[in-house]
Amino acid sequence: MGSMTEAVGSAAPLIPAATNPMVTPLLTDLYQFTMAYAYWKAGKHKERAVFDLFFRKSPFGGEYTVFGGLEECIRFVANFKLTEEEILYLQSVMPGCEDDFFEYLRAVDCSDVEVYAIPEGSVVFPKIPLMRVEGPVALVQLLETPFVNLVNFASLVTTNAARHRIVAGNSKTLLEFGLRRAQGPDGGMSASKYCYIGGFHATSNVAAGKLFGIPLRGTHSHAFVSSFMNPNEILDKTLQSHDGSITCKDFVNLVQTWLSKLQHSDSLHGLFGDTNQSELAAFISYALAFPDNFLALVDTYNVMRSGVPNFCAVALALNELGYKACGVRLDSGDLAYLSIETRKFFRAIEKEFNIPGFGETSIAASNDLNEETLDALNKQGHEIDTYGIGTYLVTCYSQAALGCVFKLVEINKQPRIKLSEDVTKVSIPCKKQCFRLYGREGYPLVDLMCGVNEPPPKVGERILCRHPFIESKRAYVVPQHVEELLRCYWPGKSHEAREKLPSLQETRDRCIEQLRKIRPDHMRRLNPTPYKVSVSGKLYDYIHFLWLNEAPVGELQ
Amino acid sequence: MGSMTEAVGSAAPLIPAATNPMVTPLLTDLYQFTMAYAYWKAGKHKERAVFDLFFRKSPFGGEYTVFGGLEECIRFVANFKLTEEEILYLQSVMPGCEDDFFEYLRAVDCSDVEVYAIPEGSVVFPKIPLMRVEGPVALVQLLETPFVNLVNFASLVTTNAARHRIVAGNSKTLLEFGLRRAQGPDGGMSASKYCYIGGFHATSNVAAGKLFGIPLRGTHSHAFVSSFMNPNEILDKTLQSHDGSITCKDFVNLVQTWLSKLQHSDSLHGLFGDTNQSELAAFISYALAFPDNFLALVDTYNVMRSGVPNFCAVALALNELGYKACGVRLDSGDLAYLSIETRKFFRAIEKEFNIPGFGETSIAASNDLNEETLDALNKQGHEIDTYGIGTYLVTCYSQAALGCVFKLVEINKQPRIKLSEDVTKVSIPCKKQCFRLYGREGYPLVDLMCGVNEPPPKVGERILCRHPFIESKRAYVVPQHVEELLRCYWPGKSHEAREKLPSLQETRDRCIEQLRKIRPDHMRRLNPTPYKVSVSGKLYDYIHFLWLNEAPVGELQ
Repeated sequence: MGSMTEAVGSAAPLIPAATNPMVTPLLTDLYQFTMAYAYWKAGKHKERAVFDLFFRKSPFGGEYTVFGGLEECIRFVANFKLTEEEILYLQSVMPGCEDDFFEYLRAVDCSDVEVYAIPEGSVVFPKIPLMRVEGPVALVQLLETPFVNLVNFASLVTTNAARHRIVAGNSKTLLEFGLRRAQGPDGGMSASKYCYIGGFHATSNVAAGKLFGIPLRGTHSHAFVSSFMNPNEILDKTLQSHDGSITCKDFVNLVQTWLSKLQHSDSLHGLFGDTNQSELAAFISYALAFPDNFLALVDTYNVMRSGVPNFCAVALALNELGYKACGVRLDSGDLAYLSIETRKFFRAIEKEFNIPGFGETSIAASNDLNEETLDALNKQGHEIDTYGIGTYLVTCYSQAALGCVFKLVEINKQPRIKLSEDVTKVSIPCKKQCFRLYGREGYPLVDLMCGVNEPPPKVGERILCRHPFIESKRAYVVPQHVEELLRCYWPGKSHEAREKLPSLQETRDRCIEQLRKIRPDHMRRLNPTPYKVSVSGKLYDYIHFLWLNEAPVGELQ
Repeated sequence: MGSMTEAVGSAAPLIPAATNPMVTPLLTDLYQFTMAYAYWKAGKHKERAVFDLFFRKSPFGGEYTVFGGLEECIRFVANFKLTEEEILYLQSVMPGCEDDFFEYLRAVDCSDVEVYAIPEGSVVFPKIPLMRVEGPVALVQLLETPFVNLVNFASLVTTNAARHRIVAGNSKTLLEFGLRRAQGPDGGMSASKYCYIGGFHATSNVAAGKLFGIPLRGTHSHAFVSSFMNPNEILDKTLQSHDGSITCKDFVNLVQTWLSKLQHSDSLHGLFGDTNQSELAAFISYALAFPDNFLALVDTYNVMRSGVPNFCAVALALNELGYKACGVRLDSGDLAYLSIETRKFFRAIEKEFNIPGFGETSIAASNDLNEETLDALNKQGHEIDTYGIGTYLVTCYSQAALGCVFKLVEINKQPRIKLSEDVTKVSIPCKKQCFRLYGREGYPLVDLMCGVNEPPPKVGERILCRHPFIESKRAYVVPQHVEELLRCYWPGKSHEAREKLPSLQETRDRCIEQLRKIRPDHMRRLNPTPYKVSVSGKLYDYIHFLWLNEAPVGELQ
């Protein structure tokens, strides 16, 4: 772990502010400030409190979640400071509050807050704290809303991306195309970032490419095709060959020659007649602009009778000049069928005109794809190499919110429990350490929570793991490997070494690696096996002691 | 209209940048830039094009949508300019593109773009352009993604808020509490803004309060209650009376006296025994901090046996000192039942202790509320005055995306149509003007699109309104009032007067007024009547002429 941590102090590199400039200490609920005032009035505001940030159920009917958003939380904490303008605004909306409270707020920063967290990009499970935040109670409450906001959507969309990747299969290229349908500008930016972490390969979002260094992809739209009338519009028809050795003076004519050859070819004869001339003009223009990157959207008029033949004529003309066309994109219709027919067309050309590799020209598909449609495509059989996924991915359409919460578990060294009529909503008290225990086959077996003062579980030792609420559910585990889950990302005034914030690429690698480590039955789409989350025997006893203590005895009438 | 428009030129006030600093010309899809390059290479980039921004289906199973996001689009257009840093980034991701193209991009702004739009906050219907954008084709394409991004979520969440308001009823107070569950920081900010436009009364989001001037609301959380042990912790127990005339030296004692009176009262006897002391301590502390604004979350332990009695004891003590408590918030359990029981409790106190108005103390409810639960509460009967709504509202959980599109309808004065196998996806060609025709009862009857050169419909004249695609669907209308829908918000180089951007409050007022104007059967939750959207006879003929011209004749084999 040594190389992953860095010294705190003046030599530590500055942590930049949160990516979105709208993330300020005011991006919180008013009640955090009214509570802060009430704590302050009661002289309680500096009491040391521990809060856990966790979720209760994995999204999308699954049994796993990928944790995202930590870096943004740490950036926020590192730069937490109210400006004078913000203080004045707070004074205006909290009339009657004493001036000294605002003096306190003026001085407040997070130098006395400690944040422990599971590394971003990790696979995580319900009830286990993703973050454990300790500090003066009034201040840590102010962090609740921004932390939950920054983690909720990040984790949700990372998980969604990972799920899409798993269904699509590792051999496919996945492109995130969701910016226009995302929930606002930042919804789009966050989606691009976290889809990349979740295993996508590129985005269409240029701003995200610039800000995060994510690879970009994109070609042209239907409007581009419709904007052309016919190839006569094209004024400059010259194209140099790839190696620069010759100049084709009339590329339009070269394409038309190839189109005619296709129309009269033995294997393609009768498959199509006259193709759409506005589409042909658009393809030729695009190829003249991007001869090295020719990828055409082929469904503006008719995929098999116009788009694909037009694409192939341009691709073959490019081929004659030493270029290799990238491929086609299908954006409507029966994608399985059309991809198979397109592939046949490509292969027929490879064979008839003896162009090695032409049959494997890339086929991309878009149009309202989601986990279900990817799964259906797999079942039907298809020839798609690349998926462009938008709406369902970036808005997490099938479940648009994750329910992360932030619960008080200890104050003044006193453990606190939040009861609820609904057992699944009872919080697990105490300042806790958390471990992942691995079995003989290398898979994680169970996550274990115990009090910070308990001895940590050891490799080879027999450990009792108990369900936190159900007495009968318990098991002994002899771990082959023990991983401590919570690491120190913000040490406050403690002398703990601080984990370095990894690069986006490192977080993406961690996510992909972590997903590989989980036993496949936990990951499957239908009826996945729940992963076990447990507490130590000692913590179990303590939970139930507090529970009985706090819960009022009912009276049946 | 005169007073709503303002002169263009040096005297015009500057339009500020988009609210979110992440909204830049790079917040677009890469293909907009690659197309721009291909247009430029073909010498077509300055061809004048008209695009329509519209949606095909209203969200949430409804028949209406409220248009949001226009102001942000106009702010974006008014400040559209690529920075040198952005140009350099584009050069790095578009290798091989000629330098002169980037020179062109360096110079580009929206001074030659015209934006016509329906006013923000208007009720709008499918197929009618919300915005008509005209300008050089390459540039207008660059605007597509940011425009659609800025309008999609804004309109979706405004509509969602309006729907919640309609179900809740006008007499209820609606609070937006969604920041922590929103899709990222900007998802939260946008939701706060557009829920306010849609008719909500306040938000919990402090940053939104500051940025947009939206009223703020908030009290305390469960953690605040759990953080107290018992009233002995409270050190400063003094509280001045509301008029400052007397000082209560032991407010804790005063509360305990009232609690004891309640326990022994005739009407409440036996309803509760010992209340939770940590809760009582929290309530007293909150009241000491906010004697004028005492609102308590009463479900941390048990609503009827602890929360409500504790609240009432504190409220009665406050009352004795001349303060009026605000009310309670319920955040779990059977909200209908608990609100009714709480109201009975309040009324019993009003009667027994003769405290006029106490029975009507406000009851707020939160906890995963949505349209369905509001509707169910109405059917069951309840005593809730105020709703705090979060997750389902701000993430538009029941439908997380609106499908706004941006389609080319004319280039170089040539109308363009986008065909599709799916008739509902065929776009309506031509640069169009749009009208709302009102009937004798004052309700809108139909929206009508016609070409810009057609004479506009006149009051009292018989007008043929045709379904754009279905031949048999047509009707004559004699409008009593004709409203031109598209107004000029960005005149480009034309001499049209520019509509002033209204204040947030004006937009909210428009939304509420517009919703009042629509015939109720279009607005109901179950089986709403579709509102008619039509084209003129002339436009109908033209659509079908183009359609036949463009569509390939199929061959059945």
